[in-house]
Amino acid sequence: MEKNYRIIEIKESVFKNNNERAEILRKELKEKKIFFLNLMSSPGSGKTTTLVALLNILKQKYKIGVMEADIDDDCDANTIQQKTGVKVIQLHTGGLCHLDSDMSRQGLDNLGIDNLDLVILENIGNLVCPAEFDTGSSINAMILSTPEGDDKPLKYPLIFQVSDLVIINKIDAMEFFKFDLDKVKERILRRNPKAHIIPISALHGDGVQELADYISTLVENWKNN
Amino acid sequence: MEKNYRIIEIKESVFKNNNERAEILRKELKEKKIFFLNLMSSPGSGKTTTLVALLNILKQKYKIGVMEADIDDDCDANTIQQKTGVKVIQLHTGGLCHLDSDMSRQGLDNLGIDNLDLVILENIGNLVCPAEFDTGSSINAMILSTPEGDDKPLKYPLIFQVSDLVIINKIDAMEFFKFDLDKVKERILRRNPKAHIIPISALHGDGVQELADYISTLVENWKNN
Repeated sequence: MEKNYRIIEIKESVFKNNNERAEILRKELKEKKIFFLNLMSSPGSGKTTTLVALLNILKQKYKIGVMEADIDDDCDANTIQQKTGVKVIQLHTGGLCHLDSDMSRQGLDNLGIDNLDLVILENIGNLVCPAEFDTGSSINAMILSTPEGDDKPLKYPLIFQVSDLVIINKIDAMEFFKFDLDKVKERILRRNPKAHIIPISALHGDGVQELADYISTLVENWKNN
Repeated sequence: MEKNYRIIEIKESVFKNNNERAEILRKELKEKKIFFLNLMSSPGSGKTTTLVALLNILKQKYKIGVMEADIDDDCDANTIQQKTGVKVIQLHTGGLCHLDSDMSRQGLDNLGIDNLDLVILENIGNLVCPAEFDTGSSINAMILSTPEGDDKPLKYPLIFQVSDLVIINKIDAMEFFKFDLDKVKERILRRNPKAHIIPISALHGDGVQELADYISTLVENWKNN
Protein backbone atom coordinates (compact mmCIF):
# COMPACT_ATOMS: atom_id res chain seq x y z
CA MET A 1 0.00 0.00 0.00
CA GLU A 2 1.32 3.40 -0.90
CA LYS A 3 2.13 5.77 1.92
CA ASN A 4 -0.30 8.62 1.81
CA TYR A 5 0.71 10.22 5.06
CA ARG A 6 3.36 12.86 5.51
CA ILE A 7 6.30 12.93 7.90
CA ILE A 8 6.72 16.31 9.60
CA GLU A 9 9.92 17.32 11.40
CA ILE A 10 8.64 19.49 14.22
CA LYS A 11 10.80 22.12 15.84
CA GLU A 12 11.47 22.60 19.51
CA SER A 13 9.43 25.48 20.91
CA VAL A 14 11.19 28.71 21.70
CA PHE A 15 8.38 29.92 23.97
CA LYS A 16 8.65 29.91 27.73
CA ASN A 17 4.97 30.39 28.55
CA ASN A 18 3.72 26.97 27.50
CA ASN A 19 0.81 26.88 29.96
CA GLU A 20 -0.71 30.10 28.62
CA ARG A 21 -0.17 29.05 25.03
CA ALA A 22 -1.72 25.64 25.73
CA GLU A 23 -4.77 27.38 27.18
CA ILE A 24 -5.10 29.52 24.03
CA LEU A 25 -4.87 26.44 21.80
CA ARG A 26 -7.46 24.61 23.91
CA LYS A 27 -9.88 27.55 23.58
CA GLU A 28 -9.38 27.76 19.82
CA LEU A 29 -10.14 24.06 19.47
CA LYS A 30 -13.17 24.39 21.75
CA GLU A 31 -14.54 27.19 19.52
CA LYS A 32 -14.05 24.97 16.50
CA LYS A 33 -15.73 22.09 18.39
CA ILE A 34 -12.68 19.88 17.87
CA PHE A 35 -11.89 17.46 20.70
CA PHE A 36 -8.14 16.91 21.12
CA LEU A 37 -7.04 13.82 23.04
CA ASN A 38 -3.41 13.46 24.17
CA LEU A 39 -2.52 9.78 24.64
CA MET A 40 0.56 9.01 26.74
CA SER A 41 2.25 5.84 28.03
CA SER A 42 5.49 3.89 28.39
CA PRO A 43 7.09 2.45 25.28
CA GLY A 44 5.40 -0.79 24.32
CA SER A 45 2.24 -0.42 26.40
CA GLY A 46 0.07 -0.81 23.32
CA LYS A 47 -0.83 2.76 22.33
CA THR A 48 -0.95 2.01 18.61
CA THR A 49 -2.85 -1.27 18.99
CA THR A 50 -5.36 0.49 21.26
CA LEU A 51 -5.71 3.32 18.74
CA VAL A 52 -6.35 0.93 15.86
CA ALA A 53 -9.13 -0.82 17.82
CA LEU A 54 -10.65 2.50 18.93
CA LEU A 55 -10.45 4.21 15.55
CA ASN A 56 -12.25 1.39 13.80
CA ILE A 57 -15.22 2.04 16.11
CA LEU A 58 -15.06 5.83 16.40
CA LYS A 59 -14.55 6.49 12.68
CA GLN A 60 -18.12 5.35 12.06
CA LYS A 61 -19.33 8.35 14.05
CA TYR A 62 -16.65 11.02 13.81
CA LYS A 63 -14.21 12.61 11.40
CA ILE A 64 -10.87 11.85 13.00
CA GLY A 65 -7.25 12.85 12.55
CA VAL A 66 -4.26 11.18 14.21
CA MET A 67 -0.79 12.57 14.93
CA GLU A 68 1.82 9.91 15.61
CA ALA A 69 4.78 11.38 17.46
CA ASP A 70 8.05 9.50 17.40
CA ILE A 71 11.66 10.43 17.80
CA ASP A 72 12.45 8.72 14.54
CA ASP A 73 10.69 6.06 12.43
CA ASP A 74 7.21 6.08 10.91
CA CYS A 75 5.94 2.58 11.54
CA ASP A 76 3.06 3.79 13.74
CA ALA A 77 1.64 6.17 11.10
CA ASN A 78 1.93 3.36 8.60
CA THR A 79 0.03 0.97 10.91
CA ILE A 80 -2.75 3.51 11.50
CA GLN A 81 -3.11 4.18 7.80
CA GLN A 82 -3.15 0.53 6.79
CA LYS A 83 -5.40 -0.78 9.55
CA THR A 84 -7.91 2.06 9.90
CA GLY A 85 -7.68 4.34 6.85
CA VAL A 86 -7.99 7.33 9.21
CA LYS A 87 -6.17 10.56 8.28
CA VAL A 88 -2.75 10.44 9.91
CA ILE A 89 0.57 12.26 9.97
CA GLN A 90 3.86 11.26 11.52
CA LEU A 91 5.59 13.85 13.70
CA HIS A 92 9.33 13.52 14.25
CA THR A 93 10.64 15.23 17.35
CA GLY A 94 14.32 14.86 16.46
CA GLY A 95 15.33 13.34 19.78
CA LEU A 96 13.00 15.36 21.99
CA CYS A 97 11.22 13.38 24.67
CA HIS A 98 7.91 15.23 24.75
CA LEU A 99 5.58 17.59 22.90
CA ASP A 100 4.34 20.91 24.23
CA SER A 101 1.49 23.05 22.93
CA ASP A 102 3.47 24.72 20.16
CA MET A 103 4.77 21.42 18.89
CA SER A 104 1.19 20.14 18.95
CA ARG A 105 0.10 23.24 17.05
CA GLN A 106 2.72 22.56 14.36
CA GLY A 107 1.27 19.06 14.06
CA LEU A 108 -2.34 20.27 13.93
CA ASP A 109 -1.47 22.87 11.26
CA ASN A 110 0.15 20.19 9.14
CA LEU A 111 -2.62 17.67 9.71
CA GLY A 112 -5.36 20.13 8.71
CA ILE A 113 -8.15 19.97 11.25
CA ASP A 114 -10.97 22.23 10.09
CA ASN A 115 -13.33 19.40 9.17
CA LEU A 116 -12.48 17.15 12.08
CA ASP A 117 -14.43 16.26 15.24
CA LEU A 118 -11.63 14.50 17.02
CA VAL A 119 -7.83 14.65 16.91
CA ILE A 120 -5.71 12.12 18.76
CA LEU A 121 -2.03 12.69 19.53
CA GLU A 122 -0.03 9.54 20.22
CA ASN A 123 2.69 11.12 22.35
CA ILE A 124 6.30 9.85 22.71
CA GLY A 125 6.50 6.63 24.76
CA ASN A 126 7.67 8.02 28.09
CA LEU A 127 6.05 8.12 31.55
CA VAL A 128 8.02 11.15 32.73
CA CYS A 129 8.48 14.11 30.40
CA PRO A 130 5.20 14.21 28.41
CA ALA A 131 3.34 14.57 31.71
CA GLU A 132 5.15 17.84 32.41
CA PHE A 133 4.00 19.66 29.28
CA ASP A 134 0.46 20.80 28.54
CA THR A 135 -0.15 20.05 24.86
CA GLY A 136 -3.35 22.11 24.72
CA SER A 137 -5.37 18.89 24.63
CA SER A 138 -9.00 18.72 25.75
CA ILE A 139 -8.09 15.77 27.94
CA ASN A 140 -5.02 13.70 28.79
CA ALA A 141 -5.34 9.95 28.58
CA MET A 142 -2.70 7.37 29.44
CA ILE A 143 -2.22 3.65 29.09
CA LEU A 144 -0.66 1.46 31.74
CA SER A 145 -0.11 -2.11 30.58
CA THR A 146 -0.15 -5.01 33.02
CA PRO A 147 3.42 -6.27 32.31
CA GLU A 148 4.71 -2.90 33.55
CA GLY A 149 3.48 -3.72 37.05
CA ASP A 150 0.87 -2.36 39.43
CA ASP A 151 3.43 -0.20 41.27
CA LYS A 152 3.72 2.42 38.52
CA PRO A 153 1.38 5.00 40.12
CA LEU A 154 3.79 4.98 43.10
CA LYS A 155 6.86 5.55 40.94
CA TYR A 156 5.60 7.91 38.22
CA PRO A 157 3.11 10.02 40.15
CA LEU A 158 2.79 13.03 37.84
CA ILE A 159 1.47 11.25 34.76
CA PHE A 160 -1.30 9.68 36.84
CA GLN A 161 -2.10 13.07 38.39
CA VAL A 162 -2.55 14.78 35.03
CA SER A 163 -4.42 11.96 33.25
CA ASP A 164 -8.20 12.25 33.20
CA LEU A 165 -8.53 8.80 31.67
CA VAL A 166 -6.34 5.80 32.59
CA ILE A 167 -6.59 2.78 30.30
CA ILE A 168 -5.26 -0.47 31.79
CA ASN A 169 -4.16 -2.51 28.76
CA LYS A 170 -3.15 -6.18 28.30
CA ILE A 171 -5.58 -7.40 30.97
CA ASP A 172 -5.35 -10.80 29.24
CA ALA A 173 -1.79 -10.97 30.65
CA MET A 174 -2.82 -9.86 34.15
CA GLU A 175 -2.49 -13.24 35.83
CA PHE A 176 0.80 -14.03 34.12
CA PHE A 177 2.32 -10.85 35.55
CA LYS A 178 0.53 -11.04 38.93
CA PHE A 179 -0.95 -7.60 38.28
CA ASP A 180 -3.42 -6.60 41.00
CA LEU A 181 -6.21 -4.57 39.37
CA ASP A 182 -7.83 -3.50 42.64
CA LYS A 183 -4.50 -2.37 44.04
CA VAL A 184 -3.61 -0.37 40.94
CA LYS A 185 -7.02 1.31 40.88
CA GLU A 186 -6.60 2.33 44.51
CA ARG A 187 -3.10 3.69 43.78
CA ILE A 188 -4.27 5.62 40.69
CA LEU A 189 -7.19 7.19 42.58
CA ARG A 190 -4.84 8.21 45.37
CA ARG A 191 -2.89 10.22 42.76
CA ASN A 192 -5.99 11.50 41.02
CA PRO A 193 -9.40 10.91 42.63
CA LYS A 194 -11.15 12.04 39.42
CA ALA A 195 -9.39 9.60 37.08
CA HIS A 196 -11.69 7.44 35.00
CA ILE A 197 -10.16 3.94 34.75
CA ILE A 198 -11.03 1.46 31.99
CA PRO A 199 -9.38 -1.99 31.75
CA ILE A 200 -9.05 -3.36 28.21
CA SER A 201 -7.29 -5.89 26.04
CA ALA A 202 -6.61 -3.95 22.85
CA LEU A 203 -5.45 -7.13 21.15
CA HIS A 204 -8.51 -9.23 21.98
CA GLY A 205 -11.10 -6.47 22.14
CA ASP A 206 -12.23 -6.69 25.79
CA GLY A 207 -13.31 -3.28 27.07
CA VAL A 208 -12.66 -1.50 23.78
CA GLN A 209 -16.34 -0.75 23.10
CA GLU A 210 -16.71 0.69 26.61
CA LEU A 211 -13.64 2.84 26.00
CA ALA A 212 -14.99 4.05 22.65
CA ASP A 213 -18.35 4.88 24.27
CA TYR A 214 -16.65 6.82 27.03
CA ILE A 215 -14.59 8.84 24.54
CA SER A 216 -17.76 9.51 22.51
CA THR A 217 -19.36 10.96 25.63
CA LEU A 218 -16.33 13.20 26.14
CA VAL A 219 -16.48 14.38 22.52
CA GLU A 220 -20.20 15.15 22.79
CA ASN A 221 -19.75 17.06 26.05
CA TRP A 222 -16.90 19.06 24.54
CA LYS A 223 -18.94 20.01 21.50
CA ASN A 224 -22.15 20.84 23.33
CA ASN A 225 -21.10 22.46 26.62
CA MET B 1 12.74 -5.11 58.65
CA GLU B 2 14.11 -1.71 59.54
CA LYS B 3 15.15 0.57 56.71
CA ASN B 4 18.88 0.97 56.83
CA TYR B 5 19.24 2.84 53.58
CA ARG B 6 19.10 6.58 53.13
CA ILE B 7 17.02 8.65 50.73
CA ILE B 8 19.03 11.39 49.04
CA GLU B 9 17.40 14.33 47.26
CA ILE B 10 19.81 15.02 44.41
CA LYS B 11 20.03 18.41 42.79
CA GLU B 12 19.88 19.23 39.12
CA SER B 13 23.33 19.94 37.72
CA VAL B 14 24.25 23.49 36.91
CA PHE B 15 27.13 22.45 34.65
CA LYS B 16 26.94 22.62 30.88
CA ASN B 17 29.96 20.46 30.08
CA ASN B 18 28.52 17.11 31.14
CA ASN B 19 30.57 15.04 28.69
CA GLU B 20 33.89 16.35 30.02
CA ARG B 21 32.77 15.97 33.61
CA ALA B 22 31.57 12.42 32.91
CA GLU B 23 34.99 11.58 31.46
CA ILE B 24 36.70 12.92 34.61
CA LEU B 25 34.42 10.83 36.85
CA ARG B 26 35.04 7.72 34.72
CA LYS B 27 38.83 8.18 35.06
CA GLU B 28 38.61 8.69 38.82
CA LEU B 29 36.62 5.47 39.17
CA LYS B 30 39.05 3.63 36.90
CA GLU B 31 41.96 4.72 39.11
CA LYS B 32 40.09 3.45 42.15
CA LYS B 33 39.34 0.19 40.24
CA ILE B 34 35.60 0.69 40.75
CA PHE B 35 33.37 -0.52 37.91
CA PHE B 36 30.26 1.64 37.50
CA LEU B 37 27.33 0.16 35.59
CA ASN B 38 24.45 2.40 34.46
CA LEU B 39 21.28 0.32 33.99
CA MET B 40 18.52 1.87 31.89
CA SER B 41 15.11 0.72 30.60
CA SER B 42 11.42 1.53 30.24
CA PRO B 43 9.27 1.58 33.36
CA GLY B 44 8.29 -1.95 34.33
CA SER B 45 10.82 -3.84 32.23
CA GLY B 46 12.14 -5.62 35.31
CA LYS B 47 15.24 -3.64 36.30
CA THR B 48 14.82 -4.28 40.03
CA THR B 49 13.96 -7.97 39.64
CA THR B 50 16.99 -8.40 37.36
CA LEU B 51 19.19 -6.60 39.87
CA VAL B 52 18.02 -8.78 42.76
CA ALA B 53 18.83 -11.95 40.79
CA LEU B 54 22.21 -10.58 39.68
CA LEU B 55 23.26 -9.19 43.07
CA ASN B 56 22.63 -12.50 44.80
CA ILE B 57 25.22 -14.06 42.49
CA LEU B 58 27.70 -11.18 42.21
CA LYS B 59 27.79 -10.34 45.94
CA GLN B 60 29.61 -13.64 46.55
CA LYS B 61 32.53 -12.27 44.56
CA TYR B 62 32.41 -8.47 44.80
CA LYS B 63 31.72 -5.66 47.23
CA ILE B 64 28.79 -3.92 45.63
CA GLY B 65 26.82 -0.71 46.08
CA VAL B 66 23.51 0.12 44.41
CA MET B 67 21.94 3.52 43.68
CA GLU B 68 18.21 3.37 43.02
CA ALA B 69 17.06 6.47 41.17
CA ASP B 70 13.39 7.34 41.24
CA ILE B 71 11.41 10.50 40.84
CA ASP B 72 9.66 9.80 44.09
CA ASP B 73 9.11 6.65 46.19
CA ASP B 74 11.66 4.28 47.74
CA CYS B 75 10.20 0.84 47.11
CA ASP B 76 13.14 -0.24 44.91
CA ALA B 77 15.79 0.51 47.54
CA ASN B 78 13.64 -1.33 50.03
CA THR B 79 13.40 -4.36 47.72
CA ILE B 80 17.16 -4.44 47.12
CA GLN B 81 17.87 -4.19 50.84
CA GLN B 82 15.40 -6.89 51.82
CA LYS B 83 16.13 -9.37 49.06
CA THR B 84 19.91 -9.03 48.72
CA GLY B 85 21.32 -7.21 51.76
CA VAL B 86 23.60 -5.25 49.41
CA LYS B 87 24.48 -1.64 50.34
CA VAL B 88 21.91 0.63 48.70
CA ILE B 89 20.75 4.23 48.66
CA GLN B 90 17.66 5.75 47.10
CA LEU B 91 18.16 8.83 44.93
CA HIS B 92 15.22 11.15 44.39
CA THR B 93 15.44 13.29 41.29
CA GLY B 94 12.51 15.55 42.18
CA GLY B 95 10.73 15.14 38.86
CA LEU B 96 13.81 15.01 36.66
CA CYS B 97 13.74 12.35 33.97
CA HIS B 98 17.43 11.42 33.88
CA LEU B 99 20.75 11.55 35.73
CA ASP B 100 23.93 13.12 34.42
CA SER B 101 27.46 12.72 35.71
CA ASP B 102 27.17 15.29 38.48
CA MET B 103 23.96 13.78 39.76
CA SER B 104 25.69 10.38 39.69
CA ARG B 105 28.60 11.90 41.60
CA GLN B 106 26.23 13.20 44.27
CA GLY B 107 24.88 9.68 44.58
CA LEU B 108 28.35 8.06 44.71
CA ASP B 109 29.49 10.54 47.39
CA ASN B 110 26.47 9.70 49.50
CA LEU B 111 26.77 5.96 48.92
CA GLY B 112 30.45 5.87 49.93
CA ILE B 113 32.37 3.85 47.39
CA ASP B 114 35.96 3.57 48.54
CA ASN B 115 35.75 -0.11 49.45
CA LEU B 116 33.59 -1.17 46.54
CA ASP B 117 34.41 -3.15 43.37
CA LEU B 118 31.14 -2.52 41.60
CA VAL B 119 28.48 0.21 41.72
CA ILE B 120 25.20 -0.18 39.86
CA LEU B 121 22.92 2.76 39.11
CA GLU B 122 19.31 1.85 38.40
CA ASN B 123 18.40 4.86 36.29
CA ILE B 124 14.92 6.42 35.93
CA GLY B 125 12.56 4.23 33.87
CA ASN B 126 12.67 6.04 30.54
CA LEU B 127 13.91 5.00 27.08
CA VAL B 128 14.55 8.56 25.91
CA CYS B 129 16.24 11.03 28.24
CA PRO B 130 18.70 8.85 30.22
CA ALA B 131 20.31 7.84 26.92
CA GLU B 132 21.22 11.47 26.24
CA PHE B 133 23.32 11.99 29.37
CA ASP B 134 26.67 10.38 30.10
CA THR B 135 26.60 9.41 33.79
CA GLY B 136 30.33 8.71 33.92
CA SER B 137 29.60 4.99 34.00
CA SER B 138 32.12 2.38 32.89
CA ILE B 139 29.44 0.87 30.69
CA ASN B 140 25.79 1.45 29.83
CA ALA B 141 23.44 -1.49 30.03
CA MET B 142 19.76 -1.55 29.18
CA ILE B 143 16.85 -3.93 29.54
CA LEU B 144 14.22 -4.44 26.87
CA SER B 145 11.36 -6.67 28.03
CA THR B 146 9.42 -8.81 25.59
CA PRO B 147 5.96 -7.27 26.31
CA GLU B 148 7.33 -3.92 25.06
CA GLY B 149 7.66 -5.37 21.57
CA ASP B 150 10.50 -6.16 19.19
CA ASP B 151 10.11 -2.82 17.36
CA LYS B 152 11.70 -0.73 20.12
CA PRO B 153 15.18 -0.45 18.48
CA LEU B 154 13.40 1.19 15.54
CA LYS B 155 11.56 3.71 17.70
CA TYR B 156 14.10 4.57 20.41
CA PRO B 157 17.38 4.39 18.49
CA LEU B 158 19.67 6.35 20.80
CA ILE B 159 19.39 4.15 23.88
CA PHE B 160 20.33 1.11 21.78
CA GLN B 161 23.24 3.03 20.24
CA VAL B 162 24.74 3.94 23.61
CA SER B 163 24.16 0.61 25.37
CA ASP B 164 27.12 -1.78 25.42
CA LEU B 165 24.98 -4.52 26.95
CA VAL B 166 21.33 -5.19 26.03
CA ILE B 167 19.44 -7.56 28.31
CA ILE B 168 16.25 -9.01 26.83
CA ASN B 169 14.06 -9.74 29.85
CA LYS B 170 10.81 -11.72 30.31
CA ILE B 171 11.73 -14.27 27.63
CA ASP B 172 9.22 -16.59 29.35
CA ALA B 173 6.52 -14.26 27.95
CA MET B 174 8.02 -14.17 24.46
CA GLU B 175 5.45 -16.41 22.77
CA PHE B 176 2.53 -14.71 24.47
CA PHE B 177 3.61 -11.36 23.05
CA LYS B 178 4.78 -12.71 19.67
CA PHE B 179 8.21 -11.21 20.33
CA ASP B 180 10.71 -12.18 17.61
CA LEU B 181 14.13 -12.63 19.24
CA ASP B 182 16.04 -12.96 15.97
CA LYS B 183 14.39 -9.86 14.56
CA VAL B 184 15.12 -7.78 17.66
CA LYS B 185 18.75 -8.90 17.72
CA GLU B 186 19.14 -7.85 14.11
CA ARG B 187 17.52 -4.47 14.85
CA ILE B 188 19.70 -3.87 17.91
CA LEU B 189 22.89 -4.74 16.04
CA ARG B 190 21.88 -2.37 13.26
CA ARG B 191 21.86 0.42 15.87
CA ASN B 192 25.00 -0.79 17.60
CA PRO B 193 27.07 -3.55 16.00
CA LYS B 194 29.11 -3.96 19.20
CA ALA B 195 26.16 -4.51 21.52
CA HIS B 196 26.34 -7.67 23.61
CA ILE B 197 22.84 -9.18 23.85
CA ILE B 198 21.76 -11.58 26.62
CA PRO B 199 18.19 -12.96 26.85
CA ILE B 200 17.02 -13.72 30.40
CA SER B 201 14.01 -14.36 32.57
CA ALA B 202 14.85 -12.48 35.77
CA LEU B 203 11.82 -14.01 37.47
CA HIS B 204 12.61 -17.63 36.62
CA GLY B 205 16.40 -17.41 36.46
CA ASP B 206 17.06 -18.34 32.82
CA GLY B 207 20.17 -16.59 31.52
CA VAL B 208 20.93 -14.85 34.82
CA GLN B 209 24.13 -16.84 35.50
CA GLU B 210 25.38 -16.04 31.99
CA LEU B 211 24.62 -12.36 32.60
CA ALA B 212 26.44 -12.40 35.96
CA ASP B 213 29.44 -14.11 34.33
CA TYR B 214 29.54 -11.51 31.57
CA ILE B 215 29.42 -8.64 34.08
CA SER B 216 32.19 -10.33 36.10
CA THR B 217 34.34 -10.37 32.97
CA LEU B 218 33.68 -6.66 32.46
CA VAL B 219 34.59 -5.90 36.09
CA GLU B 220 37.84 -7.90 35.80
CA ASN B 221 38.80 -6.20 32.54
CA TRP B 222 38.09 -2.79 34.06
CA LYS B 223 40.25 -3.50 37.12
CA ASN B 224 43.14 -5.08 35.28
CA ASN B 225 43.47 -3.20 31.99
